[in-house]
Amino acid sequence: MADADEMSAPVAPQHVPFRGADDEVRPDFVALVEAAVRSGDAVVLRALTQDLHEADIADLLKQLDAEERPRLIELLGADFDFAALNELDEGERSQILEGLETRTVVEGVRDLESDDAVYLLEGLGEEEQEEILERMPPIERAALKRALDYPEGSAGRLMQTDVIAVPPFWTVGQTIDLMRDSQELPETFYALYVVDAGHRLIGSVPLDKILRARRQTKIEEIVTETRLVHATDDQENVARLFERYNLVSAPVVDETDRLVGTLTVDDIVDVIQEEAEEDLKALGGVKGEEISDSVWTITRSRFGWLFVNLVTAFIAASVLGLFEGQLEKMVALAVLAPIVASQGGNAATQTMTVAVRALATKELGSANAWRVVMREVLVGLLNGVGFAALTGIIAALWFGQWSLGVVIGLAMVVNLVAGALGGILIPITLERLKADPAVSSGVFVTTVTDVVGFFAFLGIATWWFRLG
Amino acid sequence: MADADEMSAPVAPQHVPFRGADDEVRPDFVALVEAAVRSGDAVVLRALTQDLHEADIADLLKQLDAEERPRLIELLGADFDFAALNELDEGERSQILEGLETRTVVEGVRDLESDDAVYLLEGLGEEEQEEILERMPPIERAALKRALDYPEGSAGRLMQTDVIAVPPFWTVGQTIDLMRDSQELPETFYALYVVDAGHRLIGSVPLDKILRARRQTKIEEIVTETRLVHATDDQENVARLFERYNLVSAPVVDETDRLVGTLTVDDIVDVIQEEAEEDLKALGGVKGEEISDSVWTITRSRFGWLFVNLVTAFIAASVLGLFEGQLEKMVALAVLAPIVASQGGNAATQTMTVAVRALATKELGSANAWRVVMREVLVGLLNGVGFAALTGIIAALWFGQWSLGVVIGLAMVVNLVAGALGGILIPITLERLKADPAVSSGVFVTTVTDVVGFFAFLGIATWWFRLG
Repeated sequence: MADADEMSAPVAPQHVPFRGADDEVRPDFVALVEAAVRSGDAVVLRALTQDLHEADIADLLKQLDAEERPRLIELLGADFDFAALNELDEGERSQILEGLETRTVVEGVRDLESDDAVYLLEGLGEEEQEEILERMPPIERAALKRALDYPEGSAGRLMQTDVIAVPPFWTVGQTIDLMRDSQELPETFYALYVVDAGHRLIGSVPLDKILRARRQTKIEEIVTETRLVHATDDQENVARLFERYNLVSAPVVDETDRLVGTLTVDDIVDVIQEEAEEDLKALGGVKGEEISDSVWTITRSRFGWLFVNLVTAFIAASVLGLFEGQLEKMVALAVLAPIVASQGGNAATQTMTVAVRALATKELGSANAWRVVMREVLVGLLNGVGFAALTGIIAALWFGQWSLGVVIGLAMVVNLVAGALGGILIPITLERLKADPAVSSGVFVTTVTDVVGFFAFLGIATWWFRLG
Repeated sequence: MADADEMSAPVAPQHVPFRGADDEVRPDFVALVEAAVRSGDAVVLRALTQDLHEADIADLLKQLDAEERPRLIELLGADFDFAALNELDEGERSQILEGLETRTVVEGVRDLESDDAVYLLEGLGEEEQEEILERMPPIERAALKRALDYPEGSAGRLMQTDVIAVPPFWTVGQTIDLMRDSQELPETFYALYVVDAGHRLIGSVPLDKILRARRQTKIEEIVTETRLVHATDDQENVARLFERYNLVSAPVVDETDRLVGTLTVDDIVDVIQEEAEEDLKALGGVKGEEISDSVWTITRSRFGWLFVNLVTAFIAASVLGLFEGQLEKMVALAVLAPIVASQGGNAATQTMTVAVRALATKELGSANAWRVVMREVLVGLLNGVGFAALTGIIAALWFGQWSLGVVIGLAMVVNLVAGALGGILIPITLERLKADPAVSSGVFVTTVTDVVGFFAFLGIATWWFRLG
């Protein structure tokens, strides 16, 4: 088959490497693929892509124009591995799926492992899901529907349902023979599971233990208790379990402790990365955004966060408005006020960043909250004093007025301590209220430092210079 | 042995669970451990900790006072698994190691797998490293020294040097027999490696393939080419390889392609998480900080970033200073100017967050840079127009002056476009200059939006109201 292809494709340009030295997909390779897609040359296309991993195919798809992507898939037909689509951002994936024939999607989904099939389906609309599931054979359909019944973001959605389970009274020899003869094995696996007559999980045996044991050894002699996951567990908790105990795979059980699937670390790696990345994006005000999103999607999604920030900016400005008289009498105050607010905001952001991340990884909890709060206040006070001196001297020299330096210095200490308190207490409080601290801490924190900064600076100035 | 312990410890309080429902270590468990450590009761301590995973022991150590930690380790003696120390932050780890007898550390390191031993040693000072290595048996010392000779953050430092390598002409049966009889196998493994007579890597065989093959099958029939890692590769690149291709383990070769070790995904999970977390912390101005650091360490490390920000705040203030005359004539400008700067800063932070992360994951590269820049400018323009209208109306109503609304609206459009350009071009430029965009983008970006915001608003106001 491969030979026939080669013969009918005398110019299969396989000498062009896929990635350049910078690890990016080479433009000349993309050009060859584009040419093949445009001319509908399935043979050249197959020759170009046959050795590529699904992740490489995904990177290749990203380089193509939107309308060429489904065309490439239809051209490759059964040679296209739908697992590649799972490596794309959600927006890219659904756009491609919309461009494909339903028949192609059904065939593609059928060839996937159960966890990949669920991942692909869960991003689709209810109607499209139904349309595809309807055309699947009943057994596969039932299995996929069962997985989709688990809540979004649960272990049940992530798990692979093909597992190897043996009874405890079997021998290692019997088990190895089963594996040699069985066709329906998962693609790769790292442990066997041991179950009782009711399919309830007893424990697991890592593959290397099977290999080291003698054939006549009973499975019950080498089975070990294993850390397990419930199908309804949240994926973030599962990720923490894998990470903490360095797991490579774990069995998944239902509410009656029956074995229903297995999770492997490669699915979990994605969850771990997503989780850290979500916090980063939430703190930056771009939650859920992907680099591949369209202008309009991005504009709308960023607008909300900016709108909330605009409200807080007006609140801060209204504090300045209260001191209009003073600003008029002494314009240096208007020039210096933003410095106090900005320095407080930056110090508070530092505290908040550490707090949000430590809350997410559970390094910050009730056991050490008090100690961390005290430490942050102390850090705020120390840095407050340091920057009070620095800012005070510069301001005093700039405007030739020593008392102005004293006033801004005092305001700086107040605002850095307020920033420290806000930076640690706001995320902790949001977490207690079951809100995501990464999403909304920033707005509250900078409101605190803007308002406190302006109030402290202009209030102290009013009193000191008797401007009231 | 376990029985004898139980008998001499009639009140082994094993009914207290280790973790509470919130997944945190239970305070009453910690209290029991503390009591045992203080009274030097090794028997109770052993009963309490014997079933705990190294990660749990690490979480337990975190809950103890600093001086109790080495005491617990000395009390447990050979029952303490030094791998637990690798789950701690670097500061905690080195503090504990300083409190231990050198003899205890040497014994502990000897019991570790090679990768764990290297991880533990690399955090120590040169002198302490030497002191420990000197007391190790020559073979172990040589292996550790070889690993420590690889650059920090390289695959050579992370790898496990105990690997199973077989020649291609062996049969599956021979291989299984080797594994059954060998004592010197790694704790767990997921693949065998195939090497030629010069120990050069030919390929790998996953364990499940060995199990599925018949005993008489030759290894060369089932060996597959494998993605490999060079010992000098940077760990971030290795992590991307594991993540992209969903690897569970990979062989490590030296510059002559000889097999020198293996990497498993559990080491890589830590790298992946660290990498995302590093970006988050760098953007928040707390690079390298850990929740366990002391007040003084934190104060100093945050001071630098705040100092740079203070400089930029003064630069922005000096722009306001240029317009002192105008501010005096029209104090509303002083009240509203921070709104323009803040809104631009927030919009730019959104763009920058997406850009920094996309650069780190290589989703943003030369192939799509131009498209992304154009998109960001368009988003900035659209949101700029939206917020120009909003801000303009509010400002006009507040100060009862429609022209003020027009002026702030124009400034808002200018600053949001400037923010978009700064937010995307600054990280890209820093990346090209081989600087870490996560660390220093923020400072440049907010300087741009502060300076442009103040200049645009006060400049347009000067011209519009003829204040010059």
